Amino acid sequence: MPQEGQGLVLALDVGGTDIKVALQDAAGGFHGLRRLPTPLDPYRPGDVIVERVAGLVREYRDQAGGSPIRSIGLVVPGLVDEDAGVGILSANLGWRSYPFSRMVQEATGLPVAFGHDVGMAGDAEMRLGAGRGLRDVVVIIIGTGIAGALFCDGRRVLGGGFAGEIGHAPVPGGLQCACGATGCLETLASAGAIARRYTEASGRPVAGAAEVLAAAGAGDKDARSVWNEGVEALAVALSQMVAVLGSEAVILGGGLSQAGSALLEPLGQRVDSLLSFHRRPRLLRSVLGQDAGLMGAGLRARDLLAEPR
Amino acid sequence: MPQEGQGLVLALDVGGTDIKVALQDAAGGFHGLRRLPTPLDPYRPGDVIVERVAGLVREYRDQAGGSPIRSIGLVVPGLVDEDAGVGILSANLGWRSYPFSRMVQEATGLPVAFGHDVGMAGDAEMRLGAGRGLRDVVVIIIGTGIAGALFCDGRRVLGGGFAGEIGHAPVPGGLQCACGATGCLETLASAGAIARRYTEASGRPVAGAAEVLAAAGAGDKDARSVWNEGVEALAVALSQMVAVLGSEAVILGGGLSQAGSALLEPLGQRVDSLLSFHRRPRLLRSVLGQDAGLMGAGLRARDLLAEPR
Repeated sequence: MPQEGQGLVLALDVGGTDIKVALQDAAGGFHGLRRLPTPLDPYRPGDVIVERVAGLVREYRDQAGGSPIRSIGLVVPGLVDEDAGVGILSANLGWRSYPFSRMVQEATGLPVAFGHDVGMAGDAEMRLGAGRGLRDVVVIIIGTGIAGALFCDGRRVLGGGFAGEIGHAPVPGGLQCACGATGCLETLASAGAIARRYTEASGRPVAGAAEVLAAAGAGDKDARSVWNEGVEALAVALSQMVAVLGSEAVILGGGLSQAGSALLEPLGQRVDSLLSFHRRPRLLRSVLGQDAGLMGAGLRARDLLAEPR
Repeated sequence: MPQEGQGLVLALDVGGTDIKVALQDAAGGFHGLRRLPTPLDPYRPGDVIVERVAGLVREYRDQAGGSPIRSIGLVVPGLVDEDAGVGILSANLGWRSYPFSRMVQEATGLPVAFGHDVGMAGDAEMRLGAGRGLRDVVVIIIGTGIAGALFCDGRRVLGGGFAGEIGHAPVPGGLQCACGATGCLETLASAGAIARRYTEASGRPVAGAAEVLAAAGAGDKDARSVWNEGVEALAVALSQMVAVLGSEAVILGGGLSQAGSALLEPLGQRVDSLLSFHRRPRLLRSVLGQDAGLMGAGLRARDLLAEPR
C-alpha cells in the first residue's frame, strides 16, 4: 500500500488510444499504474473522458486503502488552453473547447490540474529529468508524429495553447501533411514518416524507424537516404529554433530518440554546422521517457496542494 | 524647456555608426534629440562609449535648465545580457563581455537601464505601439540586416542574450552569410540583400530595396524574382516561428516595412498558405518606427524611478 505522506494524487495521461493512470505519492512514486482504452464518443467526446476519470477516482480511492486522493492531474493531447482549463481541439478524440478542469472538478469534487500532454511532459523533464538546472530548452518528442515544448527564460511558452507544434512547422523538402499544410517537419522526420517513406522507396514493409536505421547501417541505400533526409530536416528545424530562441539545450524524447548516438551524433554535427555566433545547444536524451506526461500530471496535481487555496 | 514632471531621463541608442540621444520627459516626449558619430576605439571599445555617455549627461544637464536627470536608458547592438548589464559581443563595435551598466553608473552616478537595441525597441512597440494589448508577438526589423524580438505570454524572450536572431536563422535557398553560417534569412530578405542581389542579377546599381520594388512593379523580371524570393524566405521564417510559438501577430519595422501593403499583402497570403490549424498571425506595421529603440531606452530608464530602490 502506498505511503500517504503529504497525500496521494491521481495522475492521468489521456492519449489517442490509451489512458495511463496511476496514484502518485509525495516522493513521486507511481502506484497501480495501468493502461485502459481511451473511451470514444463522437457526440460526447469530452464527457466520456470525464466519466472515465470519475470512475477511476472511485476505483483508486478503494485501492488507496483509506488514504484520501487529494487532487487530480489530467493531461490531454491536441490544442490546450491550460490557463482556462479548456481542451481547445483534439482532431483525434473529437472535442472542441471542452472545459475539462471545471467538468472533472464537478464530477469528482477534487481540485484539478489540467494541461497539455507534451507540455507537462516537458515540465517534468525540466524539473526532474534532463532539463534540471536549465532555462532555455527545446523539448522535442519524436514518435508517430512530432510534438514539443519550448522553455524560454525558465518558463514554458504557452502561446494561447498553440505553442510547441514543432512537427507542423515547415522545413525544406517537407511533404503534404495530414494537417492540411505542406512541408511539415513530421512528414520527413517522425519515426512514422521514416518507416513509411522507406517502404514507399524500397517496397519493403518495416515495423518501424529502428528497422530503417538498422538497414541504413547495413548499407541499404534507400534506408540511408530516408534516414539522412529525416536527420537533415530535424537539424534545420532545431537550428531555426535555437537561432531565434537562444536555446542552451535540446532534449529529445519519443521512440526515435532510442536510436541514441546514431541519431544524436549526426544531428548535433549538422546543427553545429548551421550555426555561427549563436548559442550552441547541447543535445540530450529524455530521462523520464514514456512516463514523462504522467509524471508531469502528478507533479502539477501536487503543486495544487502546496498553493494557498 | 522640458517639463520636469516626475523627472527627466536621458535615453541613448548606440548604433553601428550613430548614437541617438535625447532627454525624455514623464509624458514620453523627447527633447534635444541629436545624432552623433559612435566613437570607435579598437583597444577600448566599451570605455569610449561610456566616456561619451558621461559627457552627454553633463551636456544635457546644462540643457535641462536645472531639472535633474534622474536615470539613464542605454541600448546597444550585438549580443546583450540585460540581466547582468553586460554587452556580450558586438562584432561591429568590438566589445566583448563589457559591463556597461556598472561602468556607466560609476561614471555618472545615475541608475542605468541597459538593454539590447532591438529588444527594447520591441518592448516599446508592445507598450505604446502596434503591440498594445497583445501577448504573443514576433517583432521583426528589416533594414540592412534583420533582427527581431520575440514576445511569448507577454514577456520578451531573452535566451541569455542570444534570442531574437531572426536574420541568422536558416531558410531554404539562403546564401553564404557574413556571420559565417550559410542559409541565413537576411541573405535573401533584408533590404540590403534585396538591393545587392538585384544589382548582381541585372548589373544595374540601385539606391535601395524600394527601387527594386518599383522596378518589379514596372515589370522588371530580375526585380520581381529577387523581391519574390525575399518575400518567400520571410514567409517561411515567420511561419516556422508562428507554428512553434503560437504568435498572434507579427510586427514589421525597419526600412523594408515602408513598402507597406506591397510587402504585407503577399507576405500575409503566403504565411497563411503555409499554416493549417495553427494560430493565424495578424501582420502589422511598426507604429514607433526608427525611434522605437530610443523610446524603449527611455521607458526602461523611467521604470527604474518607479521601482523601490
